[in-house]
Amino acid sequence: MAIFPSNAEQQQTETARLEAFSDGVFAIAITLLILDIKISPAVAEESGLLTALVQQWPAFFAFVTSFATIGIMWMNHHRLFTVIGRADHVLLVLNGLLLFGITFVPFPTSLLSEYMGTKNATIAALVYGGTFVGIAIIFNTFWRYASHNNRLIAHDADPQRVAIISYQYRFGPLLYVVALLLALVSVPLSIAAHLGLAVFYALPGRLTRA
Amino acid sequence: MAIFPSNAEQQQTETARLEAFSDGVFAIAITLLILDIKISPAVAEESGLLTALVQQWPAFFAFVTSFATIGIMWMNHHRLFTVIGRADHVLLVLNGLLLFGITFVPFPTSLLSEYMGTKNATIAALVYGGTFVGIAIIFNTFWRYASHNNRLIAHDADPQRVAIISYQYRFGPLLYVVALLLALVSVPLSIAAHLGLAVFYALPGRLTRA
Amino acid sequence: MAIFPSNAEQQQTETARLEAFSDGVFAIAITLLILDIKISPAVAEESGLLTALVQQWPAFFAFVTSFATIGIMWMNHHRLFTVIGRADHVLLVLNGLLLFGITFVPFPTSLLSEYMGTKNATIAALVYGGTFVGIAIIFNTFWRYASHNNRLIAHDADPQRVAIISYQYRFGPLLYVVALLLALVSVPLSIAAHLGLAVFYALPGRLTRA
Amino acid sequence: MAIFPSNAEQQQTETARLEAFSDGVFAIAITLLILDIKISPAVAEESGLLTALVQQWPAFFAFVTSFATIGIMWMNHHRLFTVIGRADHVLLVLNGLLLFGITFVPFPTSLLSEYMGTKNATIAALVYGGTFVGIAIIFNTFWRYASHNNRLIAHDADPQRVAIISYQYRFGPLLYVVALLLALVSVPLSIAAHLGLAVFYALPGRLTRA
Repeated sequence: MAIFPSNAEQQQTETARLEAFSDGVFAIAITLLILDIKISPAVAEESGLLTALVQQWPAFFAFVTSFATIGIMWMNHHRLFTVIGRADHVLLVLNGLLLFGITFVPFPTSLLSEYMGTKNATIAALVYGGTFVGIAIIFNTFWRYASHNNRLIAHDADPQRVAIISYQYRFGPLLYVVALLLALVSVPLSIAAHLGLAVFYALPGRLTRA
Repeated sequence: MAIFPSNAEQQQTETARLEAFSDGVFAIAITLLILDIKISPAVAEESGLLTALVQQWPAFFAFVTSFATIGIMWMNHHRLFTVIGRADHVLLVLNGLLLFGITFVPFPTSLLSEYMGTKNATIAALVYGGTFVGIAIIFNTFWRYASHNNRLIAHDADPQRVAIISYQYRFGPLLYVVALLLALVSVPLSIAAHLGLAVFYALPGRLTRA
Repeated sequence: MAIFPSNAEQQQTETARLEAFSDGVFAIAITLLILDIKISPAVAEESGLLTALVQQWPAFFAFVTSFATIGIMWMNHHRLFTVIGRADHVLLVLNGLLLFGITFVPFPTSLLSEYMGTKNATIAALVYGGTFVGIAIIFNTFWRYASHNNRLIAHDADPQRVAIISYQYRFGPLLYVVALLLALVSVPLSIAAHLGLAVFYALPGRLTRA
Repeated sequence: MAIFPSNAEQQQTETARLEAFSDGVFAIAITLLILDIKISPAVAEESGLLTALVQQWPAFFAFVTSFATIGIMWMNHHRLFTVIGRADHVLLVLNGLLLFGITFVPFPTSLLSEYMGTKNATIAALVYGGTFVGIAIIFNTFWRYASHNNRLIAHDADPQRVAIISYQYRFGPLLYVVALLLALVSVPLSIAAHLGLAVFYALPGRLTRA
């Protein structure tokens, strides 16, 4: 069941099915997040459902942050494919690594929902932040591979647009590392930083101008 | 990993991948609803499976209502994109907010299944109705943004069709607010009103003519 | 948030997005089925994993049958859209009812896994068979609506192909009713009949020739 | 509800919707894998979350291996459809069997997560490896059917590419059988062999040259 012909690296195929498959994975991962929010029946019975809901604020906080971050990453993936015109074998593998990161997100989100506010909160937040640092690094590698000497860039792509993406990608992982390290100071602050990064990226691009 | 080039707001891209991704989220959210229906093994053992199934009527009621409402919202989304021809950055973000609302639906549905018929029923129904009011408001904002001065309307879209949608959108959130407030009187009535709204919207458009 | 313009019934749109959304729901429902197969840790601990797996034969049986039936229904849906060329409002609603049936399937499958071999087996099998009878009836209504006077049939569709589908659809629900009623005699026989129907439909069309 | 017209076997349709549906199933199965990783709250409480995470290494190992294997199988499916140009009824059914195998993967993955390191590890690993042997055999049958006398090969497909795929497919199932049998010697070795196969297939094709 070997996958690629011997001249695989020279083969370049269309990106349509790659994008469709990736969209599916993004869509499922982002929709599974809600399954982590669960109310304690005991608390709802004793103190009322409102109290039980309020007690679950870490789960809501983690849900919103992960949703926003996966959403931004989907938009980012979408954006890259407005200038990437072809896929080769290496890009398929890098895309697979990227999707690996995305499907992993519900797990640290679940950890955070469960352990924020307990003595294990810092470790949960480090696993959470570390996941996003990892994804940011894969995204960078993905882009560098595709854009190096315009390897897989569409022939009609705007060179300025390519240059801007390359410029902006320099700082992405660093910002996620900062958000990660904040967990050593304060877990809610670290999560807020992740949410802030997603909101920042959701804003139109003015602030990131050179 | 900044997402948009500095001229992001001027950029307008095709809506195909946006629609595909949204379809994925709608399809997953609507299919996850069934996971909330669970039968009590203890009741099935003692009083038989039929009794256990009948006891679960709130879960079936909530399932049907949420399925119908998400289904109508998908049709609505579909309908808007028959006249929306382009997407810009703001529309992507508004669409993200919309999908946030849709992926959230399984949670209040689960609350309702669990707490209808208990002392916590009203709060569960308010969270449920509040979710749909929120989605209706986002849908309105989405449409107003896209249709304002024909900002993102396809050049060949029928102006009368656009005008009719705008006319009809004026009352949407209000109807959901009414269904929400009914929960203060009677929870089953409130859910029935939500189901009724979905059925109403599923009927051909004659009743909503100006 | 009313969905359709006043001339909705006259509006006929392309079926591409309808098919894509339906595919998503079919794909998710068919993939969620596996989540129902669970091994008893207690049995695995005491008597070994092999015994625990063998004890779960009703769950495997139900999984295979539901997978095959949903798979055949997807192929069927696919087949109809090789001759249906347009969608109108009523077809969208009928398609929604069809998807409602499909997303419901994991629930009776779960019931069957749980209660086959217990005193509640017959009720579980009746709910299971009843679900498929319901879907078969919706499928029939769907096809009759689309094909009546060639209402939504593509202009270049082969009339003989349309006639064959109509001929074959006459007996579908009846066969599912027979499989359902077998549950009153024997639950495993009823499930085997459902599986047999799926295998029969998966065979090339020779046996069903007029 | 019979599915195919009497001349079904002669009918050959486009593969687009088949690929889209398959992509959906692959994407969902690969994303559901993460739901199997669960942390023991008792261990996290007593010994800390880090210990609880480390104790779950079999679950992570199984997750990574299954993700990589499903990913490779998706790439493989993708690759076959670069030369397969048409689908007929038999191919639809073989594709259904293939998807049956793919949707089954989360179950043996879950078994392995649960029972690696217990007395039931060997049986879990045999079920796991057996699943992949089964999928490899279906993949082979699928390819042989499509490529025999160029039955469903696109008219403009490169004959050398077709020949290379056929050559490589000769050994696929054998390699999976070896990985399966290693479970009789050592379970971690068997899983490592499966992971190694996925990594091997993810590498560009040089090593597999004739």
